Amino acid sequence: MGGHQQDYAPASANVPLPQITDERTFQGYRREDGRVGTRNYIGILTTVNCSGSVARFISEAAEKSGLLDAFPNVDGIVPIVHGTGCGMSGKDEGYDTLFRTLSGYARHPNFGGILLVGLGCEVMQVAELVDRRPIRSHGALRYMTIQQEGGTRRTVEHGLEQLRGIAELANQAERKPAPVSALTIGMQCGGSDGYSGITANPALGYASDLLVRHGGTSILSETSEIYGAEHLLTRRAESTEVAKKLIERVKWWEDYTAQHGGEMDNNPSPGNKNGGLTTILEKSLGAVAKGGTAPLREVYKFAEHIDKNGLVFMDSPGFDPCSVTGQVASGANLIVFTTGRGSVSGYQPTPCIKLATNSAMYARMSEDMDLNCGDIVTDGVTIEEKGVELFELLIRVASGEETKSEQLGFGGVEFVPWQIGAVM
Amino acid sequence: MGGHQQDYAPASANVPLPQITDERTFQGYRREDGRVGTRNYIGILTTVNCSGSVARFISEAAEKSGLLDAFPNVDGIVPIVHGTGCGMSGKDEGYDTLFRTLSGYARHPNFGGILLVGLGCEVMQVAELVDRRPIRSHGALRYMTIQQEGGTRRTVEHGLEQLRGIAELANQAERKPAPVSALTIGMQCGGSDGYSGITANPALGYASDLLVRHGGTSILSETSEIYGAEHLLTRRAESTEVAKKLIERVKWWEDYTAQHGGEMDNNPSPGNKNGGLTTILEKSLGAVAKGGTAPLREVYKFAEHIDKNGLVFMDSPGFDPCSVTGQVASGANLIVFTTGRGSVSGYQPTPCIKLATNSAMYARMSEDMDLNCGDIVTDGVTIEEKGVELFELLIRVASGEETKSEQLGFGGVEFVPWQIGAVM
Repeated sequence: MGGHQQDYAPASANVPLPQITDERTFQGYRREDGRVGTRNYIGILTTVNCSGSVARFISEAAEKSGLLDAFPNVDGIVPIVHGTGCGMSGKDEGYDTLFRTLSGYARHPNFGGILLVGLGCEVMQVAELVDRRPIRSHGALRYMTIQQEGGTRRTVEHGLEQLRGIAELANQAERKPAPVSALTIGMQCGGSDGYSGITANPALGYASDLLVRHGGTSILSETSEIYGAEHLLTRRAESTEVAKKLIERVKWWEDYTAQHGGEMDNNPSPGNKNGGLTTILEKSLGAVAKGGTAPLREVYKFAEHIDKNGLVFMDSPGFDPCSVTGQVASGANLIVFTTGRGSVSGYQPTPCIKLATNSAMYARMSEDMDLNCGDIVTDGVTIEEKGVELFELLIRVASGEETKSEQLGFGGVEFVPWQIGAVM
Repeated sequence: MGGHQQDYAPASANVPLPQITDERTFQGYRREDGRVGTRNYIGILTTVNCSGSVARFISEAAEKSGLLDAFPNVDGIVPIVHGTGCGMSGKDEGYDTLFRTLSGYARHPNFGGILLVGLGCEVMQVAELVDRRPIRSHGALRYMTIQQEGGTRRTVEHGLEQLRGIAELANQAERKPAPVSALTIGMQCGGSDGYSGITANPALGYASDLLVRHGGTSILSETSEIYGAEHLLTRRAESTEVAKKLIERVKWWEDYTAQHGGEMDNNPSPGNKNGGLTTILEKSLGAVAKGGTAPLREVYKFAEHIDKNGLVFMDSPGFDPCSVTGQVASGANLIVFTTGRGSVSGYQPTPCIKLATNSAMYARMSEDMDLNCGDIVTDGVTIEEKGVELFELLIRVASGEETKSEQLGFGGVEFVPWQIGAVM
């Protein structure tokens, strides 16, 4: 395949990076489907906004009662709450996107078990999620609706009981050596500035290349922020088909924004401009640098299950929490987030490593940043050195070392499914 | 005005309900702009999802430190967190809608003070919200961005200090007698069933008429759920202009849904159907019954500041948490929510009174329901009797009596701004 249609995929770019044979490992949770968790949380998933409060109540009641005290291998309970799930069509692209997102979280390797809570009358039905396809290969999946349980208090009580059973099973998981090829990093930049494209993004690109050479997977996303630089990726596509898929996504985006009476012009944001980025093209060129030099192996829809290793692209908006939500749903077990202005956020169940693009911001916000890449400019550190430093940090975090945002308690708020279509 | 163009507003319908002259009062918080709060919360508002976690941290830190112990007149601290504010155009209908929503919460009479927290680099800028127009007439408005403060911990620390100042001012407010004409109820139905249109909705309609006769305000909404029954409202429009505004909104909705490749056909939902509703027309006829018989005085956009009394219409989706969010932003200081299937939700800062449409659901979920209207069918209670009972309950809740959802701790999750336009 590939390489014979120069517009899309010149042959010269299809040489894969040489594989690294020394087997590096991390300490992870091996799951039945072959994937490996970097954390072992229990998720309380919700089909609809209307069951969100009750999911939180269950989580709070579990914390108060010390339910997890007996289960030291469980990292915590994560309520996954959102603003949609009803007032929507039950058969369009928006529905499918939300369905993929919730399914992706439900089977995520970083969850050792799942409690799914619905209201009962919503468009996104619990039964659909449970029945339409196997959404979970490991741990327990229990589910309930508030209307069937008979209200808030009874749902919370029964939910606590269910959690106990889920935790017993989840607690059997233990960290064991796993090849780094089981790592899937979601790459992200947010609050970018003029340094992003010359410090943190290329350092991340170098680490991504290293991971790819070890057989791992790196996800590039934010279609609206590679706009104008997509040729840099199609050129590296593994096949003409993959290149075409990316072009199709870009065209979809042109239609999507035109349909809403706009252009792909929300970028750069006010913060980007203050940070020295003048055009979306400049931002896009910097954004693509995160992808390193590896060939592009596949293009996925938002929240689609990622089943290939190497560098892949997952379609998403540039809006960070939404894009990361899609990456996690797709299977990312690490997020690496470069920021120039200083984004603070976390994405349970997946740990998020924050890279500062400049030393001034790092000095101001070091309590939120995991790694300073500004020293590439201020202290002459090379991209390669920084890339290796990041690669080692990836392995430590994957093995259980807490990120800054985990220490600070970030997590649930940043679950933002991509809402496509009319709210009705 | 009005009445001369029969299609829209036949003269016969324009006779206002006779005003009731015995001045009924409730115990409320009078604010400088003439509006009256039914609660006295402090809001922590967020411009963007990216400041949502920090807003919660501030709220949690305040609770842990017992900050409010010294301020008994403050009802609590409410973080208002959402999934948007960036990755959007800065100049379209979607932006304006979010801006109105946040402004409406910022000046809401149920907030005795506001702390506004942004990240810094987002599209929805703190400075815009503070500067573009006076958003607050009473209490304190303080604001900060995480990037300017220098990260999460510093923002939480400074936020706590700010909260103390806000609480000192908010604590000066006291409940005093206020005319019931200062009540603005947002009317809502969710998880409707075949009983909605013959029990709870007409009882609410009767109470709404009573409130209107006392000079109060009732907001009907959910444009997609009055679809097919809009003639029942245009007929009652106070003027041709008002009727035209409603028709314009319905046309906007036809365009909006068509633009997204759909029809106004997400209704009835799975739960509606299980509850015996077969078509959107049947649901719409029942939904309009909430509006009683009063003339329609004005039609507002989503989250637009409501400046007229009587029965008014505020455009919104049928999706309950989103529609209520708009009503609260418009100034609703009470929500009345009828439900057949059994919705559970709360909408701080505004208390939400739940009406069961049938006795079977009430028996199952009485811990979540404030009033059973099923006895209209099962025990021969009249619509009028139930309407009066509800009217009295409104006054008690407005004066401070806790609703079931307040007792249970519902609130923050159900803030769902209407996201219009592309996520980018």
